[in-house]
Amino acid sequence: MHTWIKIDQNSDFSIYNLPFGIFSESDNVKRVGVAIGDTVLDVYAAYELGIFKDLKFDIRVLESDYLNDFIALGKSTTVKVRTYIQSELCNTNSVLKSHPSVFIKQNEVQMHLPVKVGDYTDFYSSIEHATNIGTMFRDPDNALLPNWKHLPVGYHGRASSIIVSGENVHRPKGQVVLGPNTEPIFQPSARVDFELEMGFIVGKSTKLGESVSTDAADNYIFGKVLFNDWSARDIQKWEYVPLGPFLAKSFASSMSPWVVTLEALEPFKIDGPQQEPAVLPYLDFKGPKNYDIHLEVAIQPKNCIETVVSQSNFKYMYWNMNQQLAHHTVNGCNLNVGDLMASGTISGKNPNSYGSMLELSWAGSKPVELNEGGARKFIQDNDTVIMRGHCQKGAIRVGFGTVKSTLLKAN
Amino acid sequence: MHTWIKIDQNSDFSIYNLPFGIFSESDNVKRVGVAIGDTVLDVYAAYELGIFKDLKFDIRVLESDYLNDFIALGKSTTVKVRTYIQSELCNTNSVLKSHPSVFIKQNEVQMHLPVKVGDYTDFYSSIEHATNIGTMFRDPDNALLPNWKHLPVGYHGRASSIIVSGENVHRPKGQVVLGPNTEPIFQPSARVDFELEMGFIVGKSTKLGESVSTDAADNYIFGKVLFNDWSARDIQKWEYVPLGPFLAKSFASSMSPWVVTLEALEPFKIDGPQQEPAVLPYLDFKGPKNYDIHLEVAIQPKNCIETVVSQSNFKYMYWNMNQQLAHHTVNGCNLNVGDLMASGTISGKNPNSYGSMLELSWAGSKPVELNEGGARKFIQDNDTVIMRGHCQKGAIRVGFGTVKSTLLKAN
Repeated sequence: MHTWIKIDQNSDFSIYNLPFGIFSESDNVKRVGVAIGDTVLDVYAAYELGIFKDLKFDIRVLESDYLNDFIALGKSTTVKVRTYIQSELCNTNSVLKSHPSVFIKQNEVQMHLPVKVGDYTDFYSSIEHATNIGTMFRDPDNALLPNWKHLPVGYHGRASSIIVSGENVHRPKGQVVLGPNTEPIFQPSARVDFELEMGFIVGKSTKLGESVSTDAADNYIFGKVLFNDWSARDIQKWEYVPLGPFLAKSFASSMSPWVVTLEALEPFKIDGPQQEPAVLPYLDFKGPKNYDIHLEVAIQPKNCIETVVSQSNFKYMYWNMNQQLAHHTVNGCNLNVGDLMASGTISGKNPNSYGSMLELSWAGSKPVELNEGGARKFIQDNDTVIMRGHCQKGAIRVGFGTVKSTLLKAN
Repeated sequence: MHTWIKIDQNSDFSIYNLPFGIFSESDNVKRVGVAIGDTVLDVYAAYELGIFKDLKFDIRVLESDYLNDFIALGKSTTVKVRTYIQSELCNTNSVLKSHPSVFIKQNEVQMHLPVKVGDYTDFYSSIEHATNIGTMFRDPDNALLPNWKHLPVGYHGRASSIIVSGENVHRPKGQVVLGPNTEPIFQPSARVDFELEMGFIVGKSTKLGESVSTDAADNYIFGKVLFNDWSARDIQKWEYVPLGPFLAKSFASSMSPWVVTLEALEPFKIDGPQQEPAVLPYLDFKGPKNYDIHLEVAIQPKNCIETVVSQSNFKYMYWNMNQQLAHHTVNGCNLNVGDLMASGTISGKNPNSYGSMLELSWAGSKPVELNEGGARKFIQDNDTVIMRGHCQKGAIRVGFGTVKSTLLKAN
């Protein structure tokens, strides 16, 4: 595929990608955009130029605060919108070529949260992460709880506090216990952490009582984002029994602005880890359902260069997205377009592939040296956490850009 | 206060109440209504008759699928809407009296889910309930976990599957473990339960990073509903470690259609239980913050009369709503109008005041005899679960109506 757009060969936003997002310019009007190279294609303006004319959808879904109404058109339309754009960008006679104003430099736009998240679910699907946590907090000989290999453990998260990359986060305050048999005190968390995750956006609603099979699940996944599930480990440790994490997570989670479609990720499908014991039939699946996505996390202290502290990969996931969706709906729980399902922390086997400071510093016992700015057990005030992700197969590169937030001091 | 409307003295919907809801007639247009006696006052029609004319809000918030836009006007408006209606209903020269068509019989309308719930949080704030559960599943000598008396334990629930009273629920399927050291199997839950809860509707949004004090919390609570947090105990037992209940709850939760305002509940404020040990300062509060609300649960098997199986009271709550809100936001988590915060199961001290079958039948060991239809350990297919709630002080009665759903067989 050859495009007439000039794109750096290391760009995440190649002609093979074309992710969707919500952007605005100085007029603050939010519109649907597609990232290509270092520009945003204004999809609303492209519609006005007639490139989608046989698709017959309402242009108003392209001038919207969120992608939800666009996504709700269904893959029968949205997949075509993407491939029509791809064709135009490869066609040297395209009407887009003679209308350069439909392309706006990415550094001149404001990106916004791409979707209005109805419900946000966080899974716990990396076996390396779950094993590390179980080893640290429970028992190295029985690190995984008995249910872990039988179902993709998950829980509901807070949707209201999901923010877009570039928005910053205040260190949360809460109850922590400083030592065994001591009373809780109230203070700013001293153990703020990132969690390297990816999330997928539900692209099709279901009715209460319906279930989605692992076979059908691809039709319900619009695309994927990078996701930093900020966590306050000291608050979490005290509060989480017996009903799970609550305030330790709900102060913020950061999402990348570009939603990479499942179609763009198709070339990067691979087999996942062998599942043993065998899963129950409703969780069984055919063919490769994991994705080879290189992930990395960097910490950048204020006025310092960054240090990459983790290099992981989405392919490590024990439970795949199809299984997560099948499990989530097997009880009849209904889905809405725009729901977010996150993977849980994505850790690999090697210590440099762990997806959280809790694991990288082994609960604070092994500080992580940075190139500049000292060492870190957890995240300090004014540190910026940057996550990146991309797929590469020969010359084909499809990337997610970044999700980036700075931890500010407690309010 | 004397109204010209004829109201049965046992009506939940006295002139002192005037709760808000969303109703429709045969034209399927959803509008804001206020319950009075056995009728619904069409608030949209009342607006057109000019009774709110100095309040200057947009009539379109009254013709809406949900109360959210109305609630978002703020208490400075919504409290007046209610008191203006109260005045009109007491004024024998009211324009409403000469327009009987603004009153529609409740049995001639369809009631809808009153709010679009953004995020739903479920607390665990009844000490009797938490003690019962801890006694049954962990250790009678240490029934409460160490954090329980220091903070209102809560977790995020699924918002999409909240349904209005009258909608029915299918028995969920899922993974259950039938005995110690046996593998999980997939089957319809054999332990479907109700949880007697009340929920409050957030009436005012906050920004990320803001906290709400216990003093200010009343301004953030629009009103209250009855809430049946359906639970599948066998699924819950297997899945809930370490991240909390998930599919055991997300198949459905039932909400009553009328939101009783905090102002209507003002006369029923009382002191709550003594909190010992003392709470941290951010959870401290002044004055009575509990509410004396009689609650009951009945089971009605198909073609049988109902049996009241539990009589409880909202006053038993160890943690009050102001504390729940202060805790929820102390880490900076933001609130949106329409968020739902539920109490957790409301159990009293006596076995007949327990708020779930799990407690009433003591994990199935003591079947509950019904007047008709046999005995129950848990809920059977085609049983209808009915919850009611009301406050009474002398002749003043303010009630919640009912929340009622039938459990249908598994899909």
